[in-house]
Amino acid sequence: MTDENVQVRLAARPVGRPTADNFTVTTEPRPTARDGQVLLRTRYLSLDPYMRGRMSDAPSYAPPVAVGGIMVGGTIGEVVESNSPDLKPGDVVLAYSGWQKYGVAQAAHVRKLDADSGVPVTTALGVLGMPGFTAYAGLTQIGQPKAGETVVVAAASGPVGATVGQLAKILGARAVGIAGGPRKVDYVRSLGFDAAIDHRSPTFSDDLAAAVPDGIDVYFENVGGHVWDAVFPRLNPFARVPLCGLVAAYNATSLPEGPDRTPLLLRSILTKRLTMHGFIVSDYAALEPEFLQRATPWVHEGKLQFREDFVDGLENAPEAFTGMLEGRNFGKLLVRV
Amino acid sequence: MTDENVQVRLAARPVGRPTADNFTVTTEPRPTARDGQVLLRTRYLSLDPYMRGRMSDAPSYAPPVAVGGIMVGGTIGEVVESNSPDLKPGDVVLAYSGWQKYGVAQAAHVRKLDADSGVPVTTALGVLGMPGFTAYAGLTQIGQPKAGETVVVAAASGPVGATVGQLAKILGARAVGIAGGPRKVDYVRSLGFDAAIDHRSPTFSDDLAAAVPDGIDVYFENVGGHVWDAVFPRLNPFARVPLCGLVAAYNATSLPEGPDRTPLLLRSILTKRLTMHGFIVSDYAALEPEFLQRATPWVHEGKLQFREDFVDGLENAPEAFTGMLEGRNFGKLLVRV
Repeated sequence: MTDENVQVRLAARPVGRPTADNFTVTTEPRPTARDGQVLLRTRYLSLDPYMRGRMSDAPSYAPPVAVGGIMVGGTIGEVVESNSPDLKPGDVVLAYSGWQKYGVAQAAHVRKLDADSGVPVTTALGVLGMPGFTAYAGLTQIGQPKAGETVVVAAASGPVGATVGQLAKILGARAVGIAGGPRKVDYVRSLGFDAAIDHRSPTFSDDLAAAVPDGIDVYFENVGGHVWDAVFPRLNPFARVPLCGLVAAYNATSLPEGPDRTPLLLRSILTKRLTMHGFIVSDYAALEPEFLQRATPWVHEGKLQFREDFVDGLENAPEAFTGMLEGRNFGKLLVRV
Repeated sequence: MTDENVQVRLAARPVGRPTADNFTVTTEPRPTARDGQVLLRTRYLSLDPYMRGRMSDAPSYAPPVAVGGIMVGGTIGEVVESNSPDLKPGDVVLAYSGWQKYGVAQAAHVRKLDADSGVPVTTALGVLGMPGFTAYAGLTQIGQPKAGETVVVAAASGPVGATVGQLAKILGARAVGIAGGPRKVDYVRSLGFDAAIDHRSPTFSDDLAAAVPDGIDVYFENVGGHVWDAVFPRLNPFARVPLCGLVAAYNATSLPEGPDRTPLLLRSILTKRLTMHGFIVSDYAALEPEFLQRATPWVHEGKLQFREDFVDGLENAPEAFTGMLEGRNFGKLLVRV
């Protein structure tokens, strides 16, 4: 048959910014589902910054994608064949098929989605999926903002940052968002953040200072780089820093020039009694039902808004992914397959 | 009368290593106690690394000693005059008179000590005082070692480090101590640590690696510098780093040469999901009764051993203090006044 599987594979590990040469598109016969499995036709592929880590073989919290292997990723797929009583053709599920048109999954490992819930199924990859849950877990478990405290988050127009700020508001805190460029900043403000700041502005550091007159109690860190440099001196005593990403550093091939500022960071952790805590969302898996129970109504009521950025075609995923690492997406980046 | 007060004052803020020029010894009439106050004759003055911070006016968790002011510090004093029904002449109390022979205190602000308890009253400045409580609070509240986990602590022959390791053993963890020179290392081993390592050895980093075959789950940080550099790569996923001191950096006048390794630290916090948390003992004041209740029997039973290092005479306090910052003391440093 002509409807073959199309796959994007890791061709070579990137040095610095990934390029087209790091990916290769292959085709092969579409796979077959065995007992207890389903064959899924991918409808949407989620592109997320963590995938940059999987392209490298530096030690991390998850093993890398093998060279020649299919790029990993969360997907929304339609059941084409089912060998499970729990799912039937036409069902739409949240899966982890990766960057390919067809994938086989254990029926027990996918989650059936309600296509008529009133919000797009793609929210299962965004505000109600891994990014939204990352925001919820990091903010409620590590950040723990009290009413009236100031929460700062970068990449605030993205699916994690936008959710962090809106959750902070729901929890009674002040939310300050950092984003790149006036359009994103305007969008962040429209979400109800108390302030939104452009990190590309030459006055960024001063703008941040003006936006946090009482300092920063929670900095939800997903960026690093010059945003961290501006935030760091404004952290209040007892500030909490949930750290789930460092996208500004993912393509770095060398460390910044000296001096070595490590002692400054350690000294601030001491004198300000900071808490810095790295996490990935799976560390809080037990919390996911609570998250979905609380956040789903917020999305339906418009308290948790979201924005999606679609790209068409798997063959365009590599360029879209590389652009995302540089902030060229605007909202949750999804590939329509 | 001839029995005047003798005081050590901050003459000038040090740049780098404090010298004799940073201190001045003054005499003045001894003060008088007012209503509710006691006049104390200092018997012992505690010398502690945090005092280096108070000599500087860099922002920190406590205001600096004013130039010309009396150096601060915990003391054990004998009541000479009392205007409080709760204390009588001859009583021995824990106070905070600073580096001086006589001090006046509110009776409500001192704690009467039992001179016949079977352990020296000086333990109230060491294993059963601020240093011991620092160890207890940081280890139980932040480090939270589980049985079988590996706890590493530096300055392990000092009153904080020695207590951390012995508490770790009581809690069922493996304790690895780092100290400077063979005598201290032998002493640390004699306290029951599972391993003791000399950070002055050229093979220090390899020795540490050999002593922590399963990595490090808790690093109780009170030193920084090259000890941190050796520990950092060996932290396990989900390791906890209570941070209460950075004595190796206290005399630094500039940052180390580059590159700037801050991104490496942030990356490790992320990928290993580390928790770093700075604290000072007063953050956990509510826990002190629990500490004393648990630790006092351990000291009496010999489960919590301690070592004291005495210097005679207030006039020798500056040199002893400066030496302590370089590790020249051996055990809890006290000035016999």
